[in-house]
Order: sequence, then C-alpha cells, then structure tokens
Amino acid sequence: MTAGQTQTSGQETGSGTSGPETHGSSRTIISIDAMGGDRGPAAVVAGMVKSIAENPDIRFIVHGDAPALTRLIAKRKRLAGLCDVRHAEKIVSMDDKPSQVMRHGKGTSMWGAIDSVRNGEATVAVSCGNTGALMAVSMLRLRKMPGVSRPAIGILWPSENPQGFNVMLDVGADVRADPTDLMQYALMGASYARNGLKLANPRIGLLNVGTEENKGRSGLKEAFDLIQNAATNNKFTFTGFVEGGDIPSTRVDVIVTDGFTGNIALKTAEGTASFVRRLIQGAFKYSLLSRIGALFAVTSLTRLSKRIDPRRVNGGVFLGLNGTVIKSHGDADAIGVSAAIQLAIQLAKSGFTEKLAARVASGTPEREDTKIDQTKE
Amino acid sequence: MTAGQTQTSGQETGSGTSGPETHGSSRTIISIDAMGGDRGPAAVVAGMVKSIAENPDIRFIVHGDAPALTRLIAKRKRLAGLCDVRHAEKIVSMDDKPSQVMRHGKGTSMWGAIDSVRNGEATVAVSCGNTGALMAVSMLRLRKMPGVSRPAIGILWPSENPQGFNVMLDVGADVRADPTDLMQYALMGASYARNGLKLANPRIGLLNVGTEENKGRSGLKEAFDLIQNAATNNKFTFTGFVEGGDIPSTRVDVIVTDGFTGNIALKTAEGTASFVRRLIQGAFKYSLLSRIGALFAVTSLTRLSKRIDPRRVNGGVFLGLNGTVIKSHGDADAIGVSAAIQLAIQLAKSGFTEKLAARVASGTPEREDTKIDQTKE
Repeated sequence: MTAGQTQTSGQETGSGTSGPETHGSSRTIISIDAMGGDRGPAAVVAGMVKSIAENPDIRFIVHGDAPALTRLIAKRKRLAGLCDVRHAEKIVSMDDKPSQVMRHGKGTSMWGAIDSVRNGEATVAVSCGNTGALMAVSMLRLRKMPGVSRPAIGILWPSENPQGFNVMLDVGADVRADPTDLMQYALMGASYARNGLKLANPRIGLLNVGTEENKGRSGLKEAFDLIQNAATNNKFTFTGFVEGGDIPSTRVDVIVTDGFTGNIALKTAEGTASFVRRLIQGAFKYSLLSRIGALFAVTSLTRLSKRIDPRRVNGGVFLGLNGTVIKSHGDADAIGVSAAIQLAIQLAKSGFTEKLAARVASGTPEREDTKIDQTKE
Repeated sequence: MTAGQTQTSGQETGSGTSGPETHGSSRTIISIDAMGGDRGPAAVVAGMVKSIAENPDIRFIVHGDAPALTRLIAKRKRLAGLCDVRHAEKIVSMDDKPSQVMRHGKGTSMWGAIDSVRNGEATVAVSCGNTGALMAVSMLRLRKMPGVSRPAIGILWPSENPQGFNVMLDVGADVRADPTDLMQYALMGASYARNGLKLANPRIGLLNVGTEENKGRSGLKEAFDLIQNAATNNKFTFTGFVEGGDIPSTRVDVIVTDGFTGNIALKTAEGTASFVRRLIQGAFKYSLLSRIGALFAVTSLTRLSKRIDPRRVNGGVFLGLNGTVIKSHGDADAIGVSAAIQLAIQLAKSGFTEKLAARVASGTPEREDTKIDQTKE
C-alpha cells in the first residue's frame, strides 16, 4: 500500500461538491473505489460520467485521494451534486498480498468503498483494484451470507442466447470447491441470471470434460446429484454436464464450475478472442482490396468489435457476501469502468443482495432434505 | 460395437489393391482406422487422397470393412498400389465404453489399426474413433513407455509464435495428474515441440490461475519445482506459471496442465473461436455495404478463416506409449483427416516415438537427482 498524494487529512473528508442524500432517499447509491486501477482515478471518473448519462437518478460515494478526485469531478458538469468524495490516505496496489491488506488495509480507498456498503450508505461497491485483496477485504468487512461456505465470482459471458450473455461462476474467488459449494454456486448463479439477465427459469449446466453422467472427476457426480435435486424447489432447470464449448451456447444460461477451472476457461476465452481479433485486423490490412473491403464493412466490423470487446462486459460480481461488490478489470478504461458501474446500478435497483440471500437461505435446507432422500435410494 | 456390413470373412483379408512393401522398405507406413468416424470411411479415404498429394512416398495399411474400402480406394487413382486393406468385422461406435472395448474390442478396425503399430508394420496409427476407447486400446496393446505413469494427449494450438502453433498437453487422456505426471508432460511436450515444431530449446509454461509462485492449487508449486529442476538437463527453458490467456501467446511454446483443465481450456477456445466466426459471418451479411466489403476482402477473409479453422489443426497425439497414435476429430471431413495424417507422417519421419522414449528415459533419473538436490536446500 502506498500513501496517496494529499494535502488534506482525516478519514472521511467531505469534498467541495455537495454530498448525495444518503438517507431517506430513493436514489440508488454506488460506492466507488477510485484508486488502485492501472489507469488511475481519471479513468474511473470518466467511467462515472459515461454511466450517469444513461442513469440520471444515481449518486456516488467516491473513495480515494480527495483533492485529486475533487479536481477531476469538478471538471465534469454531469457529476455536479452527485458525488460524495471520501478521502483515503492509502491505496491497495496490484502487488499487495491479500493477507497483508486484511491486516493493514484500513484507510485504503478499497476498504472505505466496501465499508460504505457495510454501513448501508451504498448498495453496491465497484473497484478496479487487485482481485485477491478485494475479495479478502470484502469477506472480512461484509462477511459470508448465512449458509454460504465459499463465495464465488460470477461474470456475464457473451453468448448466442437471446439475452446476449450467459452467467459463469466461479471464475476465481477460490481454487477449490466441493460438491456442496458447486450446488450453492448453482443457486447463486440462478439468482444472478434472474436479476442480472431477467430469466425466470434459468438453465444451469455443470462444467465437465464430457456430457455423460459417468465421465469426469469424482466429486462432480456428487455435485450433479445435489444440483439436480435442488432444481425444482429453486426454480431452475438442470441441463446436466456441459463442456467448454457449451459456455457461449444456447444450451445453458448459467455454467457452474470451481474457481480454478473457471478462471482458466475465462482467461483462455479472452486470449482466444483477442488472438482472433488481431487476426481479423491483420486480414484487413493484408492487401489493398481488403483495405477497401474494410471501408465498406466498417459499420458491421464496428458492431462485431463491440460484441466481442471485453471492456463492454467488464465486471465480476462477488456472490455469497452480505453486500454486493463488483470487480472491474485492473486496466479498465472509461468504457470498462462504465460497464462495471452500469452492472452495479442494475443489481442495486433489482434488490439483488436481498434476493440472493433469500434464495441461498431457502436453498440450504432443501440441500439437507436432498441428502436424506439420497440415503433412501 | 456393431458388426461391419461385409460379405468377406477373416481377420486380415488382403484387398484387391496390391499391398505396400512393409518390410525392407524405407517408405513411411501409416496405419489407418477407416471406420468409427461420424462421416464414415468415405471421408477417411478422401483425407488419405489429400495427404498423399503432398507426400508421395508414404503407404497405408487401412483397417475396416474390406469390400467397402476396396471399392472406395479403387475409385481413387492416386491411391493405386499404396494401400493394404485389412478387413475388420466390427466397429467401435462413439457410445462404446472404454472398458467394454478393452474386453471385447478384438476384431474391430480400431484394434487392428493399433496392432499394426504394435507389430512394427506401421510407425503411426490414425483413428477418428471414440477418444476414451482409442486411449484404452492403445494403452492395452502398446503399453506405457518405461517411466511414464499417465500418458497424455498433446495438441498443436494456433499461436502467435513464428512456428504458428504451441503445444498443449494433457487435453484429456486423464482427468488427474500429480506433480510427477506434470513434470513428465513437460518432458513429453518438449520432445513433441522439438519433433513436431522443430524448436531446439522450447519454452515450457505450467498452467495456473496466476503467474506468481505462491498462487494457485497446492500440487502446482511442487510441479513447478520439479519442472524447473529438470529444465537444464532436458534442453528446455522453464517459463514458470502461465495463465489461460498465454496459451496462444509468444511467451511459451508448450503449455503443461492436467487432462481435466486442458480439455476444458481446449473446448472453451474452440467454442469461442466458432462463436466469433459466426459473428464475423453475421457481420458481413448485415447490410448491403458489408456484403460488398466482403467481396473485396474475400481473399483475406479466406486466409483468416483457414487460420482459425479447427479442421486444419486436427490431431491429438497420444504421448507416453510404445508407439504413436493420433486421434482425429470424430466429425473430421477430408480436410480434417488429411491434417491428422500429415501430422502422422511428420512424426513418423522424424523418428518421434524413439526420441520421446529416450527423452523420458533420460528425464526420469534426472528427476530423482533433483529430489536429492532439493533436500540439500
């Protein structure tokens, strides 16, 4: 952690801009960690401006270097009167270890952003900081939801489904997951699909190396049975085992896996998409004819590029905590930060945290019933 | 297994075409399982024709329904005198379980194709059949190489490296791999990169969810140390941990992982590439202008399409057996089968099986030395 450059002191210095009405207001309030991203607070403030254009009824609590933030915000007319700047002395860097941040992270912008959700001032927090540290601070300050053993990170994965995205979890909160964790990921993923994608009865698939029931790792068969038994009472359809190729397909809406496998799959897909994107760019620069072709097709190519642009689907949601936290890519620019904030707004407005807690609470006894049923077989 | 439609009988009926000189000849002989693929023997024979065009000095031993194969081969002038057809009564289907094929698989075209390698008639076998059954029969008939505990399936992965491909293993031979297995995969992957990609000193990466040494699953740190210690004496460079996004990158030439993770990564990448391919096609049909653009860019788009066409990189190599077996995609068409056969030819000509055996044999004691060194630290 490094000390922020600041002339002011104190933990929660108000900024020059007027603060939002945090109490007794129906406005959605989003807590922002403005520091810790690779591009600094200017990219975060630019992202706030972009997201407010489409959501004029929201307000921000912005954590970080108050003098710098106040200057950046003052330049943006659209943000006038919508930001409550809270000064933070310190910044969590990309190299800080989660254990270190848990012990010494008080006073960082990340810690402050999570605490605004903890104390009820904001509904959702957004940070571009170090994933491990953000998960550690979130678990420490928000605590796990009753009934949840391992929180997960869920993301929206571009897909061929009408909603345009599938939900994938866990993409890296925890490298391990036992069968019960995977069953809870199914409940959490179904809830995310209902609130984030407006799907009443999402189809859940369990990631494996084959689709037959007798294939794959040993613990996956047990998870298969637990998820199958939980499906009816929890309003989702269980598709069974799915393979890597099904992740962006119309076969499922939610893909459940452990955080090791999910993270590898996510990074592999991102790597493949950028490899193909570079090949496309190369193809259109290859000859004079193809350059002319690119001119004719420019609108269609721009649409395509938007569709597979990882910045536009930026935002991993931490699921299973008493509060919702969104992790934005460390190198997110204004477009990326804006995508993460818009996701935060959508989940805040849908009352996602409460709905997820209710689902997990109702799903957990159901799992116990299931275990009793299994012994009868 | 289903009985082939045949009027002739006997295990090794010669066909009407003259057989290759299997003994005392310097020609490369490839054993082909012509049945068991989704598209039947016609696609396999068409693939043989395509591959012989670029390699006139090879011959084939072709296993399957002799009357049907003889008819198909007789229609192809290029194959005249180059094929020795061996009749097989039975076919391994895509639904047959590996255990069942191990017990009752004798007399299938798959079994026969492997036995041609076992008895030294052919150098490499190629099959489009069921992966699990093919691995089971290969292990049963060829046996594991001395010193190898788990065989692996290695593939060529399109990459930005000058050689155009990286090697990835294991992509699905075994869902488990302990640290010693991963170290052996590094030796086998390095040998494949030397013989398949002509890289004298390949760079090996170990797949993980982060690149720092203290991240990821517990067994991976142990594998990290084993591979690092084996690097110098086995003529490869160890890059350390790599992430999913590095698989097609210039950071490494060989990516080592367990068969569960590798299979998920492979299928995810294939799914992502076909998703993007469909989006590209959609983009160019979107408007009249983009259709005109596609006409100008047709050559460049065809080049791009070839580059990311999974048929052209078809062929998973079974590594760690006393003989080389190549698994072609079940739904491979002539282009796909031809790619698998060309890979077989390249590996056969390079004396790959012997070189790999020598590398594993020299690498295994090295691992023991390494363990002794570690206790000194």
